Amino acid sequence: MNDEIAAMTLLTPPERVDIVEVAPRDGFQSIREPLPTDEKIRCIQRLIEAGVTRMEIGSFVSPRAIPQMADTGALVAAFADRAAMRFSALVPNLSGAELALAEGIRELVFVVSVSESHNQANVRRSVGQSLEELARIVELLEHEGNACLRLDLGTSFDCPYEGTIAWHQVDDVLSRARALCGDLHLEVALCDTTGRATPYQVAEHFRQLVARHQGPRLTWAFHGHDTYGMGVANALFAIHHGATTVDTACAGLGGCPFAPGATGNTATEDLVYALNGGQVYSGIDLSRLLAAADAIAALPGGQTASHLRQVPRDRVA
Amino acid sequence: MNDEIAAMTLLTPPERVDIVEVAPRDGFQSIREPLPTDEKIRCIQRLIEAGVTRMEIGSFVSPRAIPQMADTGALVAAFADRAAMRFSALVPNLSGAELALAEGIRELVFVVSVSESHNQANVRRSVGQSLEELARIVELLEHEGNACLRLDLGTSFDCPYEGTIAWHQVDDVLSRARALCGDLHLEVALCDTTGRATPYQVAEHFRQLVARHQGPRLTWAFHGHDTYGMGVANALFAIHHGATTVDTACAGLGGCPFAPGATGNTATEDLVYALNGGQVYSGIDLSRLLAAADAIAALPGGQTASHLRQVPRDRVA
Repeated sequence: MNDEIAAMTLLTPPERVDIVEVAPRDGFQSIREPLPTDEKIRCIQRLIEAGVTRMEIGSFVSPRAIPQMADTGALVAAFADRAAMRFSALVPNLSGAELALAEGIRELVFVVSVSESHNQANVRRSVGQSLEELARIVELLEHEGNACLRLDLGTSFDCPYEGTIAWHQVDDVLSRARALCGDLHLEVALCDTTGRATPYQVAEHFRQLVARHQGPRLTWAFHGHDTYGMGVANALFAIHHGATTVDTACAGLGGCPFAPGATGNTATEDLVYALNGGQVYSGIDLSRLLAAADAIAALPGGQTASHLRQVPRDRVA
Repeated sequence: MNDEIAAMTLLTPPERVDIVEVAPRDGFQSIREPLPTDEKIRCIQRLIEAGVTRMEIGSFVSPRAIPQMADTGALVAAFADRAAMRFSALVPNLSGAELALAEGIRELVFVVSVSESHNQANVRRSVGQSLEELARIVELLEHEGNACLRLDLGTSFDCPYEGTIAWHQVDDVLSRARALCGDLHLEVALCDTTGRATPYQVAEHFRQLVARHQGPRLTWAFHGHDTYGMGVANALFAIHHGATTVDTACAGLGGCPFAPGATGNTATEDLVYALNGGQVYSGIDLSRLLAAADAIAALPGGQTASHLRQVPRDRVA
């Protein structure tokens, strides 16, 4: 019994966790009617005031396909003087990557799903075709010097069409992707696209993949949803198995009008609250973040899912 | 880096976790208008069909003070033939304990808060007076042979009046209580009464207390709420630091009409879902549990807070 407890008491918190605020991309995209650019700027401003230093600010994608993201360039320009901010943007293809770099984005997010069927549904390509596009983006980045790549591995735990995803399926796609990435600084995010992952599954996937993929320019992230109530637990289990970065959305903004019960990314304030309890540094001020969450929750058409916003404010600190 | 990861990959799931279903006590008590006894029986029946084997079925308390619990004896009688069920009941004092034993309850739950101010508010006694009452109950139990005691340490992490509670405050009350308990089989529950505990705080309290209090007849439980979104994470962190039992309420039934935003105990179905993901045995069938949760959510006047119930049913298994 003593041995067992000794082996189990290692949940000592890490010193810091990097949080990537994804409300401006995942969240704003989920609101059917595109938000006015100045509304977005006000929200982003509040997030920066709260201490957010990494943010997925939008996508460089066809404005016909996703009109909500059409003003991403304008948003980047509005915050061009924020040298301390690390903005990233999602790029679906080479031309999106070129646009993003031209606008001054140094961190490109490329998404490929582990499951063929979800990749087809999401980007209308096979996984192989997505990896070909990735190779083109990598070639572009290799000539850029200080740019880096975030690889979002969608459906790393569960696919809405194929069900549970095994870690070796993730390993397969990641191995093929890494073979293309050369010396690029790469952040790999295992994405729980559906929110259906459980903490032990998250732990196992990170454990297996971190053991198999190591390198000085490789870091790990977790991107999750709280739909099944696993949001905070999954993030913490990821952190204790190699993730140094977690994606969250302020106010839990997100959800999908076509998936009843689906919620947005785990709320940034819920994760920061958990981290603060272990004196884990995130750089984020919780009370200012809650002010940002209130502003985001007031956006017309947004669905939010935050626990902490429901708690009386004087009981949060 | 390798060493660090090796030290952090020990989140291997335990073989089993005991779940104590508390909806019939914490949950039904939260509904202002007492439920008809036959409604309660139908819900309890469904919970048993789902595989629940431990249940806090009610309280032996003044029916004037808490009319919602007046039929606890009738509920125990209705399930007297369920030899495999381990029913417990809350008893506030010696006469409640005598009533419970007379009705056939073998496991008595006694609550004392770690904070003086909450104990006064909750049971109108000082902690010292509660411990005197505990001594009388222990004396009664020592003559009973196969009876055992669950000690619920309220406000083990946070008090609504005094704020954060340090582990050594819990240690103090627990030490005084254990000195009274002799050879009794004792299950100690650290209760996050307000839901404000964080996973690292839960881990630290269990780590400190389990190290200081060991014995062949001592087991550990965690009782938590999901108000701050920490429910599942707190339960898992407790489990990985010595808790073998967790209290949860089907459908997350609970909340408090006087505390806006307060929610019930962590939903049983949310925890079972998390445990199933690690093949942790709880004995509970999730789809039957969700049927019970639907019945409980349909009770008039009940507030529920379950993530899993919001997910389309075909996406749960």
